[in-house]
Amino acid sequence: MGQVRIGICAPSTPLYREEAEQLTALTNQSHPAAQLVFHDQCFAIEGHFAGKDDLRSSAFLSLANDPSVDAIWFARGGYGAARIADDILTQLGPAAQGKHYMGYSDGGNLLGALYKAGIGTQAHGPMPVDMRRDGGMVAVQRGLDWLVHWDKQALEPHAEAGQKYAAFNLMTLAMMVGTPLLPDLEGHVLMIEEIAEYLYAFDRALFNVTTYLADKGLEGIRLGRVSEVPENNRPFGEEAEDIVQRLCDRYAIPYLGRADIGHDVENKVVPFGTIPT
Amino acid sequence: MGQVRIGICAPSTPLYREEAEQLTALTNQSHPAAQLVFHDQCFAIEGHFAGKDDLRSSAFLSLANDPSVDAIWFARGGYGAARIADDILTQLGPAAQGKHYMGYSDGGNLLGALYKAGIGTQAHGPMPVDMRRDGGMVAVQRGLDWLVHWDKQALEPHAEAGQKYAAFNLMTLAMMVGTPLLPDLEGHVLMIEEIAEYLYAFDRALFNVTTYLADKGLEGIRLGRVSEVPENNRPFGEEAEDIVQRLCDRYAIPYLGRADIGHDVENKVVPFGTIPT
Repeated sequence: MGQVRIGICAPSTPLYREEAEQLTALTNQSHPAAQLVFHDQCFAIEGHFAGKDDLRSSAFLSLANDPSVDAIWFARGGYGAARIADDILTQLGPAAQGKHYMGYSDGGNLLGALYKAGIGTQAHGPMPVDMRRDGGMVAVQRGLDWLVHWDKQALEPHAEAGQKYAAFNLMTLAMMVGTPLLPDLEGHVLMIEEIAEYLYAFDRALFNVTTYLADKGLEGIRLGRVSEVPENNRPFGEEAEDIVQRLCDRYAIPYLGRADIGHDVENKVVPFGTIPT
Repeated sequence: MGQVRIGICAPSTPLYREEAEQLTALTNQSHPAAQLVFHDQCFAIEGHFAGKDDLRSSAFLSLANDPSVDAIWFARGGYGAARIADDILTQLGPAAQGKHYMGYSDGGNLLGALYKAGIGTQAHGPMPVDMRRDGGMVAVQRGLDWLVHWDKQALEPHAEAGQKYAAFNLMTLAMMVGTPLLPDLEGHVLMIEEIAEYLYAFDRALFNVTTYLADKGLEGIRLGRVSEVPENNRPFGEEAEDIVQRLCDRYAIPYLGRADIGHDVENKVVPFGTIPT
């Protein structure tokens, strides 16, 4: 088996250089077939972002348009991918087509836009930044298992061959509604997860998403983990799963149960589109 | 001049009964022509909400469909108005047409939906709950000046006769994008304000809104106050007005300057639609 070259850039927020060095060393041990290509832009800092929009866009393009790179791995989420997505889409060449793109959280903006444009293949899955979590290398290695070996053990366990899927952070998805970044989700099982939002804000975002998707032929919704919910001044009165079930009922969208995704080390891989048999 | 009966209900979250009593006493002094009709539903508590969806909806309908009531004043924001808007719209009768509807924050969902449906007239302006603020009775009295006397001193100072306006809390508006609640804003000056959101979340929400409105013939955007911005782990790198100017430039939407609205006692009244000469 040949080398798999994985280009890593940061469409949203930065990594530390030491993290890249540590991850490269660990990957050389665990996945010797992988060659991590960290773009220097991963370490750029411009306020909230890993460099200005132009820099983040050009870094993504240089890796995506490089025929020697097999996959693009988003370093980290945060916020910023939406701001460069349209610029990127107009400048991707033939070499971008054959690649696999993986990330989650804010990276969903690019996953969705690339999926909609039919450029490459995409997966919602762990990112290098997950190494910061307690036991986070388990998540990062799961990501590598997928990117390097297409290891089906890395897949979200409900993902079935022949069915279409998409997965998003809920707030990210809500902010894609009404914009050209949102792909057609007809026939898809949609998996969502959330972190650090009040339950009223979770309800509000899912109200937006389900109202929009009500008549779009969704196959159903699965709920990943909803973590680090802040305490409000009074209890919301429902749990996250109750909210999802109620809104699915309201809009006649099948609620299919839980999904094994979230902002955590257990986050499994959800490829976009039809799972191959 | 006859009495002006103002029906008060809570489409989102509740008031305390003592607040209603205090506001009634103060209004009897300051605005003797006003008769405040607090619906009991204002004081209902169901988790986050002022009663279940059905109760909030039926309270609104009973006041809006009452021919003896001249105006509907939303008691308070929070979250919840979007959940009852479609139920309300299908059950409003002729008596709802001649009324004026006022509130802000989460109430924007109903203002927008009523404006879109052409039912009554609407204004983004102070609510009874503003009495909780330091010096908040100034805001409440401004609201009464508008509801009782149509006092032009209460108006946002940039509002010009013959121009169309709409005003929203930004996050509320972002969550209306892609849903049937959002009115057509062609030819309108849109005023926005925000509270208690990180600047990256402000950027994200405005990115959603301006991307959607880019080709919708907006006359321009004015920025109200952006208050209680939480400290993030690193500075965003731009102030709120820079964000608005950048996104307006990006989408060729005229940025028209500041607006005198916000979650504060200075919040001025912005009627929806064309300001009469």
